[in-house]
Amino acid sequence: MIEILDSTLRDGAQAENVSFSAADKKAVIKALSDFGIPFIEAGNPGSNPKDSEIFSSSFDYLDRLVAFGATRRKAMPCEADRLFMSLMDSPAKNVSIFGKASVFHAKEILGVTLDENLAMISDSVRFAADSEKTVFFDAEHFYDGYKANPDYAVKVIITAANSGASRIVLCDTNGGSFPDEIFEVTRAVKTALHGFPDVILGIHCHNDCGFADANAVLAVKAGVTHIQGTFTGIGERCGNTNLSAVIPALMLKRGLNCVLPENLPKLTETARKIAEIANIRLPDGMPFVGKSAFAHKGGMHADGVRKNPVSFEHIKPASVGNERNILLSEVAGRAALIAKVSKILTDRVIDKDSPEISDLISTVKERELGGYQYEGAGASLEILVRERFGIMPEYFTLDYYKILGEKTGDAEPLTSAIIKARVNDKTKLRVHEGDGPVNAIDKALRKALSQFYPVLETVHLSDYKVRIIDSKEATAAIVRVLIESTDGVNVWTTVGASTNIINASVSALIDSIKYKLLLEEKD
Amino acid sequence: MIEILDSTLRDGAQAENVSFSAADKKAVIKALSDFGIPFIEAGNPGSNPKDSEIFSSSFDYLDRLVAFGATRRKAMPCEADRLFMSLMDSPAKNVSIFGKASVFHAKEILGVTLDENLAMISDSVRFAADSEKTVFFDAEHFYDGYKANPDYAVKVIITAANSGASRIVLCDTNGGSFPDEIFEVTRAVKTALHGFPDVILGIHCHNDCGFADANAVLAVKAGVTHIQGTFTGIGERCGNTNLSAVIPALMLKRGLNCVLPENLPKLTETARKIAEIANIRLPDGMPFVGKSAFAHKGGMHADGVRKNPVSFEHIKPASVGNERNILLSEVAGRAALIAKVSKILTDRVIDKDSPEISDLISTVKERELGGYQYEGAGASLEILVRERFGIMPEYFTLDYYKILGEKTGDAEPLTSAIIKARVNDKTKLRVHEGDGPVNAIDKALRKALSQFYPVLETVHLSDYKVRIIDSKEATAAIVRVLIESTDGVNVWTTVGASTNIINASVSALIDSIKYKLLLEEKD
Repeated sequence: MIEILDSTLRDGAQAENVSFSAADKKAVIKALSDFGIPFIEAGNPGSNPKDSEIFSSSFDYLDRLVAFGATRRKAMPCEADRLFMSLMDSPAKNVSIFGKASVFHAKEILGVTLDENLAMISDSVRFAADSEKTVFFDAEHFYDGYKANPDYAVKVIITAANSGASRIVLCDTNGGSFPDEIFEVTRAVKTALHGFPDVILGIHCHNDCGFADANAVLAVKAGVTHIQGTFTGIGERCGNTNLSAVIPALMLKRGLNCVLPENLPKLTETARKIAEIANIRLPDGMPFVGKSAFAHKGGMHADGVRKNPVSFEHIKPASVGNERNILLSEVAGRAALIAKVSKILTDRVIDKDSPEISDLISTVKERELGGYQYEGAGASLEILVRERFGIMPEYFTLDYYKILGEKTGDAEPLTSAIIKARVNDKTKLRVHEGDGPVNAIDKALRKALSQFYPVLETVHLSDYKVRIIDSKEATAAIVRVLIESTDGVNVWTTVGASTNIINASVSALIDSIKYKLLLEEKD
Repeated sequence: MIEILDSTLRDGAQAENVSFSAADKKAVIKALSDFGIPFIEAGNPGSNPKDSEIFSSSFDYLDRLVAFGATRRKAMPCEADRLFMSLMDSPAKNVSIFGKASVFHAKEILGVTLDENLAMISDSVRFAADSEKTVFFDAEHFYDGYKANPDYAVKVIITAANSGASRIVLCDTNGGSFPDEIFEVTRAVKTALHGFPDVILGIHCHNDCGFADANAVLAVKAGVTHIQGTFTGIGERCGNTNLSAVIPALMLKRGLNCVLPENLPKLTETARKIAEIANIRLPDGMPFVGKSAFAHKGGMHADGVRKNPVSFEHIKPASVGNERNILLSEVAGRAALIAKVSKILTDRVIDKDSPEISDLISTVKERELGGYQYEGAGASLEILVRERFGIMPEYFTLDYYKILGEKTGDAEPLTSAIIKARVNDKTKLRVHEGDGPVNAIDKALRKALSQFYPVLETVHLSDYKVRIIDSKEATAAIVRVLIESTDGVNVWTTVGASTNIINASVSALIDSIKYKLLLEEKD
């Protein structure tokens, strides 16, 4: 068994253009936990009040959460270091403490003597261990430090082990190491740590040369049993070891389990969900979980795969919850979709060969070609399923909308919307101003519907995300909009896609309102 | 010296959503040649008339171009095989001939005996060598074939060597091999080929496990001197070895030249140019050439890099034509901002206590409170800095815009925009339809400006991201818009924020256009 630590919320949050709200963080923690990731590095409670809140409010996950921070500062006892103590005082049971495993970094960057550096590490690890924390020691710059001065680098990790660290994590902080170097150095370290059979040895890689995934698996070959990375590979600069590649590679090819085998088919869904929350686009060709990971375009390849999938596929796509993609294959995705339908329509037996299922599959395929993606938008999928099975009430119809917007010089922009909606043949024409066209339509539509459905007053949109699908010409390409809504108790996500951003938003908005009305009926 | 073959135009063209026109192909050939890539696999003249034309019309590059095709078909002499003969008849001097190095593939997929498979290979390689072609033999499925039946796999490549192949290329066609396996197998092959000292051994990897780059460099360690890949990593399924990572890694870290050292600073520009032609978006965190490859966000990292760039950078960004980017975030603060200003205003000494700096800092703070974030939007920051220092030309003013949008029932949505812009007191009023209000404003504004600034025609928006900042009430909260633009060579990002999504988008759009005009002046 290989132990996994996901650092999406800490190292991943260092990626350019990635930032997580507190709600985002909780959603990532839930997704990672559902997939079975045992350790989730969730931030630095000392340096960031937002991170601090996560630890206080995520008691359900406290066994998994890991708080991250530096050793005590130089020439200061642990108790006097406010940052260090806020790490100790956080409710986190597991703490990652990082210290320098490099002569250059200790002397030049921290400006401390080599002995003081060791003292900072031993004091901090000891203090944390004595405070009943499980201590992960991150040996920062370990590989570069080892290459320059192996004795000192090893002394650093022996110091941490002697002081009570349960995990020693070797970091290739600058991402510049080659896989063969990682293997040789890690093997030597494994030997050097033979006196500490209980210490778990781990690795943390960066992808600056494109080797972060290979480096992690070669470290495993050299004896490491703990891997750090981020689920979609995001992180400082070029990112970290991509867990959505390394986990299936080790499990399917090396027989080394990283999560329960029954969780592996949730890999693709989990990666896409986390990407949605982070508002990043996964590359199409991303190993295992990308849209094109099992797409066959070459005639010979498509032919070969039809004869025998093994011919051009290194694993079964379904084993990681992804799917083969050759034109329209009636096999692809079907099983996953049927499983979803069974979950939505719990009160009936689903006939896999029914016309409703065929119709649903072709509709989903068609919509996905048009930019929809239902992985992160369960509410829209449920509405679609119910429509296809003829059990979705027609709560209302939006007959038309018109938007008007203008801005002159430095004056405030003005936007308004006119909508016409119908409920049970009663027509309402309403106009409303708004902060932008979507907001104006939202307000006008609610105004029209509220006398029929007063419960809609409890609903508000809690997030709104826009993504370009085909980047040929950004403002004219397909736009996918995800809207997250809440009534204070439930949270649901809906999707819309169109070349027109207003149209995509309105689709997601309509689904959002319909889903709330559906929830009311279920209660 | 390691010999490089780029297959962007052949294997790269197999990627989902990638296709090259004849003009695109010529532009890629020119970009690769300018960078000094010695071999360019440009397509299959037999199966594709577009490819055939490339070889006939690219005489300047004939020494570099490689034509790709299969061996003769089963039970057919070479001369009778139309496809094979069109490969022979093309003006290409270099031909890649692929054949199966796997018992499973020969028997199950091709449906031939093992002896016939060998005969197809020897006849075809011999025929091509006798026709004065330089023959590259691609041993398809070599690594999987070797793992199942090493004797037969080696027999296949010995057959090709005996028949006159100048290069033997070992392919991990399905991309499922681990770096340690690649190393072991390649080393064994190198030994088996000791009787052919003149044959150059090569490797062709796929990235289905995320190991394509590592596999190539470990094959080099095992004795390979020819690497195939694609410049931006695109290719069938998850893509190929990414040459823009492997070339600098081998050159800067292993002292193995792949191109002339003086060409390496053109790496980033070449990768971005090819991505532009292929109409793909390079991931921000792409090793060496990505926008974020040398971006530092964490306060400690930014601090360290300021003290000594070596602290968190594995190479000098300029050595590959990329640049360091210290991202602004709440963590980084005043020092980072001053460093940025020094980089933008290279011609003057920045007084840290000057009124311009104080004004700039308070403006940035105020804007960040209003939803702006400059960490990922260097172009907007540069404009702001220049404005605050009084050296930003006023290229144009947008006096007002009006947008109109409507949708009735299931009809297509209609959107148009009216804008009034001023350049040097000349006023232009223009109207344009668009796919959504932002696109309509973009088009109308360009129409108004293009007669003053024709260079704007080269610019298009390559990404558009929307994020809600305060998610209390999503469509009425602050909206941050990031727009990425490109002119084919440069890529820049601008930001806008407002409670009104149209307004935020228009701000980012105006900055995008102004930045391009600024770039023109710098040239």
